[in-house]
Amino acid sequence: MERYDIAIIGTGPAGVSAALTAVNRNKKVLLLGSGQMSEKVAKAHEIRNYPGLPAVKGADMAKAFRNQLDQMGIGITEKRVGAVYAMGDYFALQVGEEMLEAGAVILATGVVQAKPLPGEEELLGRGVSYCATCDAPLYRGKDVIVVGYGPREEAEAAFLSEVCRSVTYFPMYKEETNLPEAVRVIREKVTGIAQDGARRKVTTEGGEYPADGVFVLREAVAPGQLVPGLETEGAHVRVNRKMETSLPGVFACGDITGTPYQYVKAAGEGNVAAISAAAYLDGLKKK
Amino acid sequence: MERYDIAIIGTGPAGVSAALTAVNRNKKVLLLGSGQMSEKVAKAHEIRNYPGLPAVKGADMAKAFRNQLDQMGIGITEKRVGAVYAMGDYFALQVGEEMLEAGAVILATGVVQAKPLPGEEELLGRGVSYCATCDAPLYRGKDVIVVGYGPREEAEAAFLSEVCRSVTYFPMYKEETNLPEAVRVIREKVTGIAQDGARRKVTTEGGEYPADGVFVLREAVAPGQLVPGLETEGAHVRVNRKMETSLPGVFACGDITGTPYQYVKAAGEGNVAAISAAAYLDGLKKK
Repeated sequence: MERYDIAIIGTGPAGVSAALTAVNRNKKVLLLGSGQMSEKVAKAHEIRNYPGLPAVKGADMAKAFRNQLDQMGIGITEKRVGAVYAMGDYFALQVGEEMLEAGAVILATGVVQAKPLPGEEELLGRGVSYCATCDAPLYRGKDVIVVGYGPREEAEAAFLSEVCRSVTYFPMYKEETNLPEAVRVIREKVTGIAQDGARRKVTTEGGEYPADGVFVLREAVAPGQLVPGLETEGAHVRVNRKMETSLPGVFACGDITGTPYQYVKAAGEGNVAAISAAAYLDGLKKK
Repeated sequence: MERYDIAIIGTGPAGVSAALTAVNRNKKVLLLGSGQMSEKVAKAHEIRNYPGLPAVKGADMAKAFRNQLDQMGIGITEKRVGAVYAMGDYFALQVGEEMLEAGAVILATGVVQAKPLPGEEELLGRGVSYCATCDAPLYRGKDVIVVGYGPREEAEAAFLSEVCRSVTYFPMYKEETNLPEAVRVIREKVTGIAQDGARRKVTTEGGEYPADGVFVLREAVAPGQLVPGLETEGAHVRVNRKMETSLPGVFACGDITGTPYQYVKAAGEGNVAAISAAAYLDGLKKK
């Protein structure tokens, strides 16, 4: 299998910056994330303290980043990463239904702003899933619920409706939904997930909804779940000034490493993470 | 005396970024440095990994930074800072012949690439000076030597020639000099400074040159000399992830904090330093 030098997860300022520097260092890069760049960037009204882009609208910053990646010949793989496994001298990334390989990994996934729902973490892997693409086959012909934290999750619900017997979608946002008729949309605030005999149930302010499986879909997954064994501090990954995490070969940058949640801080850390990852790979070669 | 909230020393990407964020946080900023921004930026051929400014020439980046400061109403005080003294709940900055005050200080002076000359540190304050504006009065009617590490130091030599009996200038760079006739220019590589009876002498590859005082002028001063008591690691200032130094109220960012020496890394650190300085000031108010 083709092995990348560096897999970069996330296309906000941290991931984009890491990709630009890694490619400048002649590394073969796999950049994973949304082609519209991070929602936090794209939706920003105006950013007034990014040096070089005065009073820039988020959408224009996203466009500038995208153009710059294009100019450097850096493509974006628009797939969700389910998990990253340390395999010794390389990493295996579960990307959709594929396993991809990279020598080093840079986490630039942003921070999970929302707290997990009551019951979510306890039932994860036992009826609760974060990845429709990965786990849909488990629920073929069954009833599932999707708790979606942003309009981008609707595509996942639509996909599930092709495979499952029924799909109930709870939008945890204000925008109107745009879903196939087969998907039942309920606008009630989800308050928790619980066991319900052999099945699961989602509780809301309005009632209880049983299902065989519950998909909780957010833009970012908690880092400890994404990379088993990674040392975290609450919602953040512990890093040093070189952006090294507790796992050799895994680096982190941007909001995932902690406050301040600022665009140029994220971009600066992405640069450092890429240089550290390149040095890590060069060190492996010498062994 | 008027007291600034935050004094920022240096106008490279770190200092500019710190200034933009500090002003966004409603802090009263004193930005000290060259109006042409840092030489390292202005002279860069092409920067290929600064997110948002694709394949940008250093001169264009400097221009973009300057315009952005102008748009935000941030002026640059083009004076050299001789020293920063911790006075308890504020800092006194020796700026030219003035003493200025600030509640917090951000060091963004870049890194001193050149090693000190043999004898330079031993004789500092005893016939060797880093600041023409500060120490010129000591050498009125006397003979001085200026060791200049960049064309910008020529203005200092010209100023000294108005005050001193004689000025001998050793350019430590290749560019042609543009100095008044009163300044004698000698193109020999300076190898050291030493005591010479009651006077000083500069030794070069070609000979020895006595004088009453020797000015060694570089763009950046070693951080430990700029801020007495500051903990350093070689040429760098020791900082944590919040860009806090060993002295409460003093923050550092950019090349001065260590490698990698990269533009966007510096800008990211400037942002963090400004946010930390603002939090430090807000904490003082509550006491």
